[in-house]
Amino acid sequence: MRIHDLQTPALLVEASDLDHNLATMAEALPGPRLRPHVKAHKCTALARRQATQGHRHFTCATVREMEGMAAAGLGEDLLLANEVLDTKRLAALDARVTVAVDSQATLGAAVAGGIREVLIDVNVGLPRCGCPPEQAGALADRARAAGLRVRGVMGYEGHLMIVEDRQKQAQGVADAMAELARAHADVGGEVISAGGTGSYDVNRVATEIQAGSYVLMDTAYDALGLPFRKALSVLATVISVSEAHSVADCGLKALGMDHGNPRIEGARVWFCSDEHVTFAPEAPVQPGERIRLWPAHVDPTLAYHERLHVVDGEQVLESWPIDLRGW
Amino acid sequence: MRIHDLQTPALLVEASDLDHNLATMAEALPGPRLRPHVKAHKCTALARRQATQGHRHFTCATVREMEGMAAAGLGEDLLLANEVLDTKRLAALDARVTVAVDSQATLGAAVAGGIREVLIDVNVGLPRCGCPPEQAGALADRARAAGLRVRGVMGYEGHLMIVEDRQKQAQGVADAMAELARAHADVGGEVISAGGTGSYDVNRVATEIQAGSYVLMDTAYDALGLPFRKALSVLATVISVSEAHSVADCGLKALGMDHGNPRIEGARVWFCSDEHVTFAPEAPVQPGERIRLWPAHVDPTLAYHERLHVVDGEQVLESWPIDLRGW
Repeated sequence: MRIHDLQTPALLVEASDLDHNLATMAEALPGPRLRPHVKAHKCTALARRQATQGHRHFTCATVREMEGMAAAGLGEDLLLANEVLDTKRLAALDARVTVAVDSQATLGAAVAGGIREVLIDVNVGLPRCGCPPEQAGALADRARAAGLRVRGVMGYEGHLMIVEDRQKQAQGVADAMAELARAHADVGGEVISAGGTGSYDVNRVATEIQAGSYVLMDTAYDALGLPFRKALSVLATVISVSEAHSVADCGLKALGMDHGNPRIEGARVWFCSDEHVTFAPEAPVQPGERIRLWPAHVDPTLAYHERLHVVDGEQVLESWPIDLRGW
Repeated sequence: MRIHDLQTPALLVEASDLDHNLATMAEALPGPRLRPHVKAHKCTALARRQATQGHRHFTCATVREMEGMAAAGLGEDLLLANEVLDTKRLAALDARVTVAVDSQATLGAAVAGGIREVLIDVNVGLPRCGCPPEQAGALADRARAAGLRVRGVMGYEGHLMIVEDRQKQAQGVADAMAELARAHADVGGEVISAGGTGSYDVNRVATEIQAGSYVLMDTAYDALGLPFRKALSVLATVISVSEAHSVADCGLKALGMDHGNPRIEGARVWFCSDEHVTFAPEAPVQPGERIRLWPAHVDPTLAYHERLHVVDGEQVLESWPIDLRGW
């Protein structure tokens, strides 16, 4: 099949860029030094490619991602790096399951759900989940007293992922990880799980990095000058041409918009509507012409699509279901 | 089933608010005076409720919406209010199919796809699809010469939907509709299709209004003081509580974000991540507690979810598949 035969909007990943990103990360963080985060792509076929690179332990954000990864035979070591109160679907999985806990309530839910292993989730500066570092040791003691195995700590420095001054970023990450190391000293265990695509090369404390976006990338991460290539684009068809602007059939329901508009090479994007992008091209385009959009945020973009098409130029090599969507 | 038994995040529509919105619109614009836009909800079960109110002619934005509506037996009169080059799936539908055309290319695609009826799409000020008003007559002549039946015109005044000063808005809509009326004089036909939830009561020219959001509403439309109630919310579970903020399990993949953050009553929303909302509640919340979020934009919110649960307080009455997603 050729790209021309795809219905639009269609998610494309360029095979050579994907291979480059997979190989670059496997060299930088081999084997269990990386625990790829599947929330970025929600696609077990792509997770299998990561496993082939030696990354066989995965990070998930939802119970559905955990279920899908286990069902796909990728359950060697799955971390649900998120707090969960409704644990009843997790115990049945054919997988090694570890969940993050940050409170007595989530610890109790883990016990009630038959979970056996946990990480203590520590707040390292991002105002989201995680207990204060100084409370991590006591929570680990309570977890062990409740019969759970505490594998270590996790702490996501998400507020430091997209910082263009990399020296400032490295200092921020070092400070955040000093907090995590302090908590780890109280908690014990062999795992310090942290980091992401923006900090994979400056986080010196984590025993494993939870990066996900590196494999597909987006315009926000691309601005950082990392060695990963923008592999993901959305193919669209020009449907209307006016004097000052043109319109293609890719809009708010095909793009994560929280980081702003997508980019189009050789054009200025004016705005997106539900099923349209209005843009001003430098050179005229014609109805029926295909264009590519570069999303600003990869994760919520993938979550809108049913399939990810792996392409080599004009050729469609494979079409992978985005099978971990929903909850 | 009770709300407590739903997995979160879950889309809820309050039955009494839904009924109020349906009845209010049916009274204001009875029968074919409203052509409900299904893009807002992408749900044939909800479209069937609109049909029961007397609105049996529908507006769609995608070929998939057209297919799903026809398959659900709701194809009495379907308008694809969008330009489409790939028409081959439309001719096979068991439905009366009308498509918008704004160029020789889309007119040619309609003929090639075996479409029989069209509306001439006219640009009335929103920089998106539509031909200039003064070119509409010539395009209609070419359409008729090609064997198409031209039912009339459409022109969406989308730039005037969310204007808080309703007097200013009414003047803007009147000006835009004067353009559409001018085009209609050249085009002929019995249909002048235009409008939306924001202009349903001030658009005096359209023979049919294409409103969709009225039935569920969102915080952006709610600010206008229209007689429709916010019927749609997202149920979430509090998963983490810290000193200054709390976190619930509803984020960027459960909410259309192009109009900004959702609202939570009695709380200030700080930010959303992929699967989290971080908020500062006025009164403390506990892990496991359920909260409701009010999305800022209804259409791209629905497109993330598989089901819409119709509730009466704590009771879940029905769960409708959101079956028109994708393309």
